[in-house]
Amino acid sequence: MAVLAHHIPEAYLAAIRREGNDLNITTSFEAGDPDICSALFWLDVPAGLSALPSLRLVLSLGAGVERLTKPGVIPAKAAIGRISNDIQSEGMADYVLLHVLRQHRQLARLQDEQRRRVWEWRLWPRARDVTVGVMGLGRLGSEAARKLSAMGFSVRGWSRSLKRIDGIETFAGTPELPAFLSACHHLVCLLPLTHETENILAAPLFSHLPRGAFLINAGRGAHLDEAALLAALDSGQLAGATLDVLRQEPPTPDHPFFEHPGILLTPHSAVCSTPEQIAPDVVENLRRAERGEPPLYAADRATGY
Amino acid sequence: MAVLAHHIPEAYLAAIRREGNDLNITTSFEAGDPDICSALFWLDVPAGLSALPSLRLVLSLGAGVERLTKPGVIPAKAAIGRISNDIQSEGMADYVLLHVLRQHRQLARLQDEQRRRVWEWRLWPRARDVTVGVMGLGRLGSEAARKLSAMGFSVRGWSRSLKRIDGIETFAGTPELPAFLSACHHLVCLLPLTHETENILAAPLFSHLPRGAFLINAGRGAHLDEAALLAALDSGQLAGATLDVLRQEPPTPDHPFFEHPGILLTPHSAVCSTPEQIAPDVVENLRRAERGEPPLYAADRATGY
Repeated sequence: MAVLAHHIPEAYLAAIRREGNDLNITTSFEAGDPDICSALFWLDVPAGLSALPSLRLVLSLGAGVERLTKPGVIPAKAAIGRISNDIQSEGMADYVLLHVLRQHRQLARLQDEQRRRVWEWRLWPRARDVTVGVMGLGRLGSEAARKLSAMGFSVRGWSRSLKRIDGIETFAGTPELPAFLSACHHLVCLLPLTHETENILAAPLFSHLPRGAFLINAGRGAHLDEAALLAALDSGQLAGATLDVLRQEPPTPDHPFFEHPGILLTPHSAVCSTPEQIAPDVVENLRRAERGEPPLYAADRATGY
Repeated sequence: MAVLAHHIPEAYLAAIRREGNDLNITTSFEAGDPDICSALFWLDVPAGLSALPSLRLVLSLGAGVERLTKPGVIPAKAAIGRISNDIQSEGMADYVLLHVLRQHRQLARLQDEQRRRVWEWRLWPRARDVTVGVMGLGRLGSEAARKLSAMGFSVRGWSRSLKRIDGIETFAGTPELPAFLSACHHLVCLLPLTHETENILAAPLFSHLPRGAFLINAGRGAHLDEAALLAALDSGQLAGATLDVLRQEPPTPDHPFFEHPGILLTPHSAVCSTPEQIAPDVVENLRRAERGEPPLYAADRATGY
């Protein structure tokens, strides 16, 4: 049995080889290779996975699996695995808290004033008078919501099916989306990308937010209608946006977001795990596949996450 | 009995008048006026306070009292009061967490990359592998330390006399300062300004930090040797600094900090209370003075805070 590691960054591959030094890892494959039992997924899905007769597991080295759940990409009987750990949820909570605080304290405005050699005392609202809405209450979203709440913000959450989290007001489904949005000074998107959530961050959604709200998208680039964001910033409906993900990554140098004063870009680095941090879980999942067991944190093809 | 409110911003004065509408508040005074029982302090201490024969209380509308504890500024028998509340400690914790996270996630570098239209994926250390040192463990410092710890950072604290805070390694006094500093990736100054702490943020202290550490000063401008900061940034001993306070506030437009790429200035706004938020405590203290009682959160002239 073999593991296909196609286009996996060298540092990650080396750590996985060290951790599972008995595994038979190959970086290329022949069409229909009957030996390949597992495949590791990073950014691109190689053509031909769906024709591997023994493939039992395709394992994403990140949290998102939307490219694997589409029909025909991998064999119907192969499980879809992912990495899910405290490092990701801690990192995402750090990211969300940083950017909510940055927006709350109007750091972009202060930095502009510093450039203009202006130094003017000002007041801020108390955190408890500021509402942060988190869309997506999986492992990442619920941890971010808990930490925002611990810092004193008023936090509400929205998800497909209703979740209960202490201290957080929760909403569910499309019918409750307008009520959820209506109070959000800061809106954080941590949704999985599915047919239902693609382009959810668009003009109709923005129109339900209080005027001058801030957006943080650390879900997927395809959640956001990029033209609608520019229009909402220009009209003042949104006061600013922090984007960790884009439709095309890396963006081309002429992307208008680079120079927009209301947009802060971060390079899909909200959450990251080092090679050493993920190698044990990767190897555990590869061994499970060899034994014919399901992976940890398997994705559900029906929901798409 | 009268309350002197000299050079108090109008919005604060109005809120205090509303809250204590029976108080006799005056905005100016004659030399040696025997009616003045209390004086409110904002930014400057009027000359002549020390010669007011009935003065029992000088009340700072903020947390710092270093200008009042100097000999001869106010009568020896007058108490020194201050405002100390959860709004201040929450606001300071927000500020400290924002700027530790901002430095931790290298936001200045990412913003520079965005300006240059660069978008490059990167990794961060886990928060628990990053040590934040908090100097000053009073109400503000201990709350900031607790919230940094709750976010997962390794937190240590230093104060004049040893304090115990759950989950935080504490150090005390000058002999333990080098050991405290030796691991701090981020150093946060929330000390009171006293004879002992003036100019503490200077070359000898910086030399004990790990190379490339970050500094946050939200104490007082006089804690920092400004020339030493520039030298430490230029040499790389410090990687960056966030300063809410300066020796001269507001700074003159030619201050070199405005244009230094390693320095982020905020306008003495880390902690702020609105007029409505402080008026009840101000009035409570003024009534206590009229009754001959000590103020809440009295400052100690011996320690200077």
